[in-house]
Amino acid sequence: MELPKLIKQIRIKKSFLCVGLDTDLAKIPQYLHKQPNPVFEFNRQIIDATAKYAVAFKPNIAFYEALGIQGWEALKDTITYLNDQYPEIFTIADAKRGDIGNTASKYAQAFFENLNFDAITVAPYMGKDSIEPFLSYTNKHTILLVLTSNKGAFDFQTKIDVQNDALYESVLKTSKTWNNSKQLMYVVGATKPEYFKSIRKIVPNAFLLVPGVGAQGGNLKDVCQYGLTKDCGLLVNSSRGILYAANGKDFAKAAELKAKALQEEMASYV
Amino acid sequence: MELPKLIKQIRIKKSFLCVGLDTDLAKIPQYLHKQPNPVFEFNRQIIDATAKYAVAFKPNIAFYEALGIQGWEALKDTITYLNDQYPEIFTIADAKRGDIGNTASKYAQAFFENLNFDAITVAPYMGKDSIEPFLSYTNKHTILLVLTSNKGAFDFQTKIDVQNDALYESVLKTSKTWNNSKQLMYVVGATKPEYFKSIRKIVPNAFLLVPGVGAQGGNLKDVCQYGLTKDCGLLVNSSRGILYAANGKDFAKAAELKAKALQEEMASYV
Repeated sequence: MELPKLIKQIRIKKSFLCVGLDTDLAKIPQYLHKQPNPVFEFNRQIIDATAKYAVAFKPNIAFYEALGIQGWEALKDTITYLNDQYPEIFTIADAKRGDIGNTASKYAQAFFENLNFDAITVAPYMGKDSIEPFLSYTNKHTILLVLTSNKGAFDFQTKIDVQNDALYESVLKTSKTWNNSKQLMYVVGATKPEYFKSIRKIVPNAFLLVPGVGAQGGNLKDVCQYGLTKDCGLLVNSSRGILYAANGKDFAKAAELKAKALQEEMASYV
Repeated sequence: MELPKLIKQIRIKKSFLCVGLDTDLAKIPQYLHKQPNPVFEFNRQIIDATAKYAVAFKPNIAFYEALGIQGWEALKDTITYLNDQYPEIFTIADAKRGDIGNTASKYAQAFFENLNFDAITVAPYMGKDSIEPFLSYTNKHTILLVLTSNKGAFDFQTKIDVQNDALYESVLKTSKTWNNSKQLMYVVGATKPEYFKSIRKIVPNAFLLVPGVGAQGGNLKDVCQYGLTKDCGLLVNSSRGILYAANGKDFAKAAELKAKALQEEMASYV
């Protein structure tokens, strides 16, 4: 998906909500376990209930891999359903892959070609030649980890180097020199709003994928204060807060209300 | 697998060879495409031909994901075959995963429980809480990326911080403070032998998984000079050089000869 199409959706829906599909068999309503494909059935109902309030969906690949072949079938069914029924929705494979060039090309093939996601999250540790195979898909977006929402982000990402840059700043600056870097977006955790100002100095216009609102404790107002750009420039993700708002037959309705509440809060910022 | 069992195998076989199963449908012999499961059939023949010269096998997960559900079936068949037929072999999922705790737990479940690998490669960027869910499996090994074999390794991994540590040194030092850190091994590329000395100062006894011998240009003698410990402490990987030594019906025999040549060179060091 081209960026103008995403920006148009944000304006139409007055939303920059991304719904994270971290679908956990142990947490979905019991009655769905009688279905032949409970994970997909859960996702389908969540998507139908929340798509009018969201501009993006983000399956978290670990949750599907944990189910083996059945999980890959559910992932394939989910992305096919999104692409067929909601072609205006931006789709993100939250995979955090990163490997040498010939291997990165295989991951790109898996998620961009076979599964036809619009975007994938990737890890920067292995540098330029581990990311450029993704960036070579100029109709897709590559979302680089910069400053993550977890506590362990402070182990390495905020380390100051001899040029006085934190590692996350160095990742941002270096990534801008890579081929097709205009296809980059960046992951920045909502739990670290005080860092958005320095990040926006380096990438004033890039889209940021922001996890950590809700269960992880991040706050939408803080994120918007420094994160917003003239084209919005934010995709704020909520997973558990929406998916598991209720665990009976009303789960989709409860998810819809949570998504609606987030969209209404977002409408006041865009 | 417990470490003493791996060390015993290294002594019995006089080998620290890891065969990388980066199995690419486009590169395997044409006649195998007539088989119902060509990737597994290729792997099975490679494993049978090379197992007597190798102590470890390392499927590169990207190559299986690129084939979708069929790829996951081939991966499952391959690890099951290894576990059933060669229980003395150390198995590594080369997955380079890394995500927040609840997601990392799902990846650990996928590779340690469902597929029953002995080890997985992981990326350090997200820090302690992204790695400890793997380390909590105290009968398994978690292999952390430290200094990789590719050119992009110089983008971030060798950046010097204000404590005068390169990032890869900081990753090594910090990782030693994590819970169950004795379960850690480390990825260090064979293409960077001049760094082994500084790495061995920080982790004098840990096992290092060393890719990059062969197609990527690394040299076994250089790696052994500083990398070897009293218990060997090295697993040196070769993928393309063994797998694609020939591309006709003689491919397994050609692979066997390549593995044998590497084992014979290794025998002079252990």
